Amino acid sequence: MKAAIVGASGYSGEELVRLLLRHPQVELAWVTSRQYAGQTVARAFPKFGSDARAKSLRFSEPQPELLGKMADVVFLALPHGVAAEYATPLLGVGCQVIDLSADFRLKSQAVYKEFYGHEHPAPELLPRAVYGLPEIFRTEIQNASLIASPGCYPTSILLPLLPLLKAGLVKSTGIIADSLSGVSGAGRKVELDYLFAECNESARPYGIPKHRHLSEIEEQLSLAAGEAVVIQFSPHLIPLNRGILTTLYLTPSAHLENENQIARCYQDAYGKEPFVRLLEGSALPDTKNVTGTNVIEIAWRVDPRTGRIIVLSALDNITKGASGQAVQSMNILRGFPETAGLC
Amino acid sequence: MKAAIVGASGYSGEELVRLLLRHPQVELAWVTSRQYAGQTVARAFPKFGSDARAKSLRFSEPQPELLGKMADVVFLALPHGVAAEYATPLLGVGCQVIDLSADFRLKSQAVYKEFYGHEHPAPELLPRAVYGLPEIFRTEIQNASLIASPGCYPTSILLPLLPLLKAGLVKSTGIIADSLSGVSGAGRKVELDYLFAECNESARPYGIPKHRHLSEIEEQLSLAAGEAVVIQFSPHLIPLNRGILTTLYLTPSAHLENENQIARCYQDAYGKEPFVRLLEGSALPDTKNVTGTNVIEIAWRVDPRTGRIIVLSALDNITKGASGQAVQSMNILRGFPETAGLC
Amino acid sequence: MKAAIVGASGYSGEELVRLLLRHPQVELAWVTSRQYAGQTVARAFPKFGSDARAKSLRFSEPQPELLGKMADVVFLALPHGVAAEYATPLLGVGCQVIDLSADFRLKSQAVYKEFYGHEHPAPELLPRAVYGLPEIFRTEIQNASLIASPGCYPTSILLPLLPLLKAGLVKSTGIIADSLSGVSGAGRKVELDYLFAECNESARPYGIPKHRHLSEIEEQLSLAAGEAVVIQFSPHLIPLNRGILTTLYLTPSAHLENENQIARCYQDAYGKEPFVRLLEGSALPDTKNVTGTNVIEIAWRVDPRTGRIIVLSALDNITKGASGQAVQSMNILRGFPETAGLC
Amino acid sequence: MKAAIVGASGYSGEELVRLLLRHPQVELAWVTSRQYAGQTVARAFPKFGSDARAKSLRFSEPQPELLGKMADVVFLALPHGVAAEYATPLLGVGCQVIDLSADFRLKSQAVYKEFYGHEHPAPELLPRAVYGLPEIFRTEIQNASLIASPGCYPTSILLPLLPLLKAGLVKSTGIIADSLSGVSGAGRKVELDYLFAECNESARPYGIPKHRHLSEIEEQLSLAAGEAVVIQFSPHLIPLNRGILTTLYLTPSAHLENENQIARCYQDAYGKEPFVRLLEGSALPDTKNVTGTNVIEIAWRVDPRTGRIIVLSALDNITKGASGQAVQSMNILRGFPETAGLC
Repeated sequence: MKAAIVGASGYSGEELVRLLLRHPQVELAWVTSRQYAGQTVARAFPKFGSDARAKSLRFSEPQPELLGKMADVVFLALPHGVAAEYATPLLGVGCQVIDLSADFRLKSQAVYKEFYGHEHPAPELLPRAVYGLPEIFRTEIQNASLIASPGCYPTSILLPLLPLLKAGLVKSTGIIADSLSGVSGAGRKVELDYLFAECNESARPYGIPKHRHLSEIEEQLSLAAGEAVVIQFSPHLIPLNRGILTTLYLTPSAHLENENQIARCYQDAYGKEPFVRLLEGSALPDTKNVTGTNVIEIAWRVDPRTGRIIVLSALDNITKGASGQAVQSMNILRGFPETAGLC
Repeated sequence: MKAAIVGASGYSGEELVRLLLRHPQVELAWVTSRQYAGQTVARAFPKFGSDARAKSLRFSEPQPELLGKMADVVFLALPHGVAAEYATPLLGVGCQVIDLSADFRLKSQAVYKEFYGHEHPAPELLPRAVYGLPEIFRTEIQNASLIASPGCYPTSILLPLLPLLKAGLVKSTGIIADSLSGVSGAGRKVELDYLFAECNESARPYGIPKHRHLSEIEEQLSLAAGEAVVIQFSPHLIPLNRGILTTLYLTPSAHLENENQIARCYQDAYGKEPFVRLLEGSALPDTKNVTGTNVIEIAWRVDPRTGRIIVLSALDNITKGASGQAVQSMNILRGFPETAGLC
Repeated sequence: MKAAIVGASGYSGEELVRLLLRHPQVELAWVTSRQYAGQTVARAFPKFGSDARAKSLRFSEPQPELLGKMADVVFLALPHGVAAEYATPLLGVGCQVIDLSADFRLKSQAVYKEFYGHEHPAPELLPRAVYGLPEIFRTEIQNASLIASPGCYPTSILLPLLPLLKAGLVKSTGIIADSLSGVSGAGRKVELDYLFAECNESARPYGIPKHRHLSEIEEQLSLAAGEAVVIQFSPHLIPLNRGILTTLYLTPSAHLENENQIARCYQDAYGKEPFVRLLEGSALPDTKNVTGTNVIEIAWRVDPRTGRIIVLSALDNITKGASGQAVQSMNILRGFPETAGLC
Repeated sequence: MKAAIVGASGYSGEELVRLLLRHPQVELAWVTSRQYAGQTVARAFPKFGSDARAKSLRFSEPQPELLGKMADVVFLALPHGVAAEYATPLLGVGCQVIDLSADFRLKSQAVYKEFYGHEHPAPELLPRAVYGLPEIFRTEIQNASLIASPGCYPTSILLPLLPLLKAGLVKSTGIIADSLSGVSGAGRKVELDYLFAECNESARPYGIPKHRHLSEIEEQLSLAAGEAVVIQFSPHLIPLNRGILTTLYLTPSAHLENENQIARCYQDAYGKEPFVRLLEGSALPDTKNVTGTNVIEIAWRVDPRTGRIIVLSALDNITKGASGQAVQSMNILRGFPETAGLC
C-alpha cells in the first residue's frame, strides 16, 4: 500500500513519517511540505537520518492533482481550513483520505460556523466523513473513504466518557473536563507563546471558557446521549513536550448503584482494546507512561464525600491524540492488523 | 527583632532563610537542622554564599529549650506532627511562633484525627492558633502568639474563593478545585517519585479524592459560609520547580445577577492588597509571573454556555504558598510594613 | 532464545525489559528485582501495562543458582561490585553473560583497584571478558561468553575517537572530552542531588577531574594507540531525562594533511554501521535526535584558527549508552540480525 | 536619577525593567518598544503587574531625539547593528549610554568587520567606549560616557580567565572554553529552533568553531596578555531558562609552582568583589545557585594526571551576563553603592 502525507513538516506530520516508515505494510511514497520542498526527509528531520527510505524520499511542493496518482491513502496534516481543497480532488480519483485537521470532524455546518467563524468550505463532504475514533466507530471506519481523525483533547475526553454516558451511568449535565497539554499540542507554530523560556516553569490556562475543540466533543457526546450535551472544558498548557492529562468530573445517574458497574462498563467497552489501558488498584494515569505510544490510560474514582465520579486519562497528544490514531484508522480501513506499525 | 528557623533544610526553610536574610527589620539569629548541624548556611545552601550573615551563621541541632532565649519570633518548618513539642515551650517563655506545618491549622480535633490518623498532640493550643492568611485574618494575626501558616493548595483555593462565598455570590455546594503543583510542593523529600527522570515529561494526579489539605480548606470554607462545606479537590504534579495553578469550578447563587458583582466583590476584598493581583481583560494567571514572589494572581470567567463561574489562581507554592506568607504574617504581628522583605 | 535480566528495576534494567519484550527472537523468561519481587512487570512499570508478557511475568528475588536454568543469556544490570557473584556460577553452567556494570570492563586489576578502591572480586574472569563495543569488537563479541557492556560516557567518547586514533590522524596526547549527561545517567538512585527541583534549571560539573569512567576510556584508548593514553574528562549534569552530548578537543598529527582524511576515516570505520550516523553539511549532533534509539550521531569540524579538530557526538545514555548496546551485542553473539529489536 | 531603556521587550530589556523598578536611586522614566508601544509595562509584562510604576509607565515608540530629554542614563537593549543611531545623538546631548549589544565592545574596526560582515557604522565612537566589566575596568567605567556591556559568554570566560592570564600563571596558548547556555541566551527570538518542544530534552552545540563572541573575548584576552590570543570556544544550548556554565581548559605556565598561587591570584583579584563567589572545598559551580542574581561562581581544579588547570564558572546570562552587569556599571558611573538594586 502506498501512503502520502500532505503537510509533513509539523509535529503530527513528523509523527506520521515516523510511524509509516516502520509500518510493515506501507510504503511511504510521497510527502509534501512547502517549507522543506526539495530536501530529503532525512535532512529535514535528522532523527530519521538512519532510515534508508528517509534518505531517498524528498519533500515535494503540495500538488493536489498529482497526489491522487501517487498514493492509495493520503494523510492530510494541514492547518485548519485548507483540507477541503485536497480532499475533494483526492476523493474524486478514488483515494482514501485521512484528515488530521478539524475540517471534517463536525456533522453540523452551523456548529462549524459558530466555532470557526466562517461557512464550511465543502459541506457536501461532511455527511461522508467518519469520525476516526476507532474504539467507537470501528465498523464505520472499515468502509470509509474520508476519515476525520479526532483532536487530541477530544480523544482524551471522549474515550473515557462515552462508555459511561452511553450506559447511562452518568448524567449528561454538569460535565467538566479539565485538561493539561504538552506544548507540542500547539503544533510547530513559531509564536512567542511557545518559546522555551515562555513555557518552561510556566503553567497556564488558555482558551477558557470556549475552546474550539468543544464543538466536536459536544457533538459526539450529544450523539451518544441522544440529547444536546454542553460541557465545561478548561485546557491548560504545561511544560511537557508531549502528553495530555484529562480530569473529568461527572455526576452519577440514578442507574448507578455501585462502583462495580463502572468497572464492568469500562471492561465491556475496552477490555479487549489493544490501545486502552484500564488502570487497576491504586494506579493513576501518568503521561510519561504513554509517551510515544498509541495507548490511552484510564482510571476512575468514586468520591464518597461528594458523590462525584472522577475519571482520569493520559495519552500522547501526537500519537493517540493525532498521528497514531490516524494510522490505527488506516489499519482498520485497509484490513491490516489494527496494531500494525503501532507497537 | 531576632528570628529563628527550626528545620531550615527543606524548601520552605531555605526560602525563609532567603527572605529573612534580606529583611530590613530582622536579624536571622538561629537556624536549626539535624542534617546540616555545624555547617554554615552559606555552605549548606551555596546560593546564599555571598551573604555575610550566611557565611557566619551555623546550623544548630534543634534544642527547644534554647530557642526561646535566642529569638523573638520562631518559624517552625518541620514535618507534620512534631511542631507541638517546640510550640509549647516556646509559647511558655513568651516567644511568638509561626508554624508552617499543618499541626495547628485546624480548629477541630475530630477533623484532625480523621485526616491525620491520630489524636492531636497538643489540643490545648488549637484555640490559640490563628490561621495565617493575612488577607482574611489580618486583625487576628496582629495579636496572635501562635500562627498556623496555611498550606500552598489551601492558599491557592481559599483566597479566590472566600470573597465570593462570603458575599453569597456562589453556592457552597458543588465546588471543584483542580490544582497543578510544581515538584517542590512535595518538599525536599528524597523519594523515587520526585526524581528528575520520574517527574520531567510527566503529568499525573495523586491523592485523589481525599487529600489531607481538604481538612483545612473545608474548615475555612465552612466558617466563611456558616454551614458545612464539602468540596472536590484534585491535585496534580507537573514538571515545574515552583508554582501552583488552581482552576475553580463554581455555581452562581441566586444573588448573582451580573458579572460586575464578581468584579466588585474581588475589588472590595483585594483592591488594596499588595500581594493579590486581580487580572483584567484577556489576562489569565501564569505561574511564571509569580515565581519567587509573594503574589497570587486571580482571574475569573463566567461561561454563558454552562452558567458556571471559572476562577483561576497562580502562586508560588514556596513563597505565597508557604514562607513568603509566613513572613507576611510576621510583618503584621510585629507592626512592620506588610511588604517588608517581600518586594 | 530465553533471556533473563538481573536487577531489572533500574533505568537500564527497565530499558532492557522494553527492548527484549519486543525483540522478535527473544523470550524474556526471567526478571529479578529485590524491590519488586512478586509484582508483575506490568505493575512495576505501568508503561509496559499493555504488553501480554509483561502482564504475566513476575519479578523474582535474584537467585544465581536458579538463573542458569532459566535463560540462555543473562543480562546483569546491577550496581558496581556485585556482578561477579552472578557471573561466576552462570558461566559455570554455560550461560552467556552480558554485564552492564563496570565490573568486567577493565583488563588491568591494578587500574581497577586504583579507580574502585578495592581488589577485583573475580580477577580470573577479566581475561575472558570482551568489551562490548560492537562497532569495534564485533568479531570478539561473536565468540564471547562474558561481555562487559561499555558505559555511556565511554561509548560517547570511544566511538568518535578510536577511528582517528587508530588511523594516526590525531595525537594521543592532550585529548579533552567534555560531556553533558541527562539525569537518568545517575541511575534510579534516590538521592537528594537527583530530585527534580535540584536538577531542573541546573547545569553543573561533577567528578572533576577524575571520574571512574576514565579507567575504561583510557584503557581502550591505550590499546588502540599502542601506548599509554591519559585524557582530560569533564562530565556535567544537565536537565534532560536521557542523552549524552560529548565534545572532543583533538590535536591533528603530522599525518593529517587535509580534512578529507577525517571524512574518509569515519566513512571507512562507520559508513556501513547501522547505528552510527555521520552527519554532513552544517548538521551537528542533538540529543533529541537519538532519544530512545540505539544511534550515535557524530560530526566534526577542523578549526583553521586554532588548528584543532572538534568532534561531537550524541547518544541516548540508556539505549546506545547501555541497554540498546547490550542487546546489539546479544544479537551478534546469537547470530541474530544486528538491528533486531532495535529499530 | 532618570533612566530610560530602549528596546525593552526582549529578555535583557525585561530584566533591566525588573532591576530598575526596584532600584532605590533610580526612576525608570522611559521605556521604548515597537512591539508594545502604547501598552503599560504592567500589561506587557504581567509579572510587574503589582508595581505602581509599571502600572503607569507606558511603552513608547523609540525616538532618539526625545530620549535625550527624558533620561540621564539610557540603556540600549537593541539587536546588533542599530545602537549607533541612538548612541550618537544621545552622547551629543550629554546622556550617558550603556549599550547591551555587541556594537561598541570591540576596539578594532577590522575585527568588527571580520566577525560581523560589514563596516562599523560609527567607528568614531569606538575609542570612547569602555568595556563594561566592572571587576576589571571599574576605574574606566567611573568616568565613561559610553559603556559597552559585555556579552554573557564573554563574562563567563573573561572573569575566571583574566586574573590567571594577567598574573602569568597560565599560558596564553591552547585555551579552550566550553560553554553551556540556557535558551534565553538566544534572546526573545521567535524562531523554530527556540520553541519549547525543540529545546526540551535537547542538548546541542552550535556556532562551532567561530562564534561571534570570540571577537570580544579574544580582544580582551589579547589586551591582558600583551600579545594576540586565539582560543577555542564551543557554545552549547541546553534546556534551562537562564544560566551559563563554562568549563575552561588551561595550561600552567612556567611560573606556576603550586596550586596556592591560583587561590591567591583569585583571592587578590576577587576576594572583595561583591558579585564574584570563589568556591571552596569540594564545591563546584551550579547555574541554579546564581539564577536571578548578579553573582558569578568560580571554582578551579589542577589535574595531576594531565597537568591541566580546569576552571569552572556559572552565572545568570540575563543578570550578570547582561542586565545586572549593566546596572552594576551604572552604579559605578553614578557613584551609587555598587550593589544598589542588585541584592
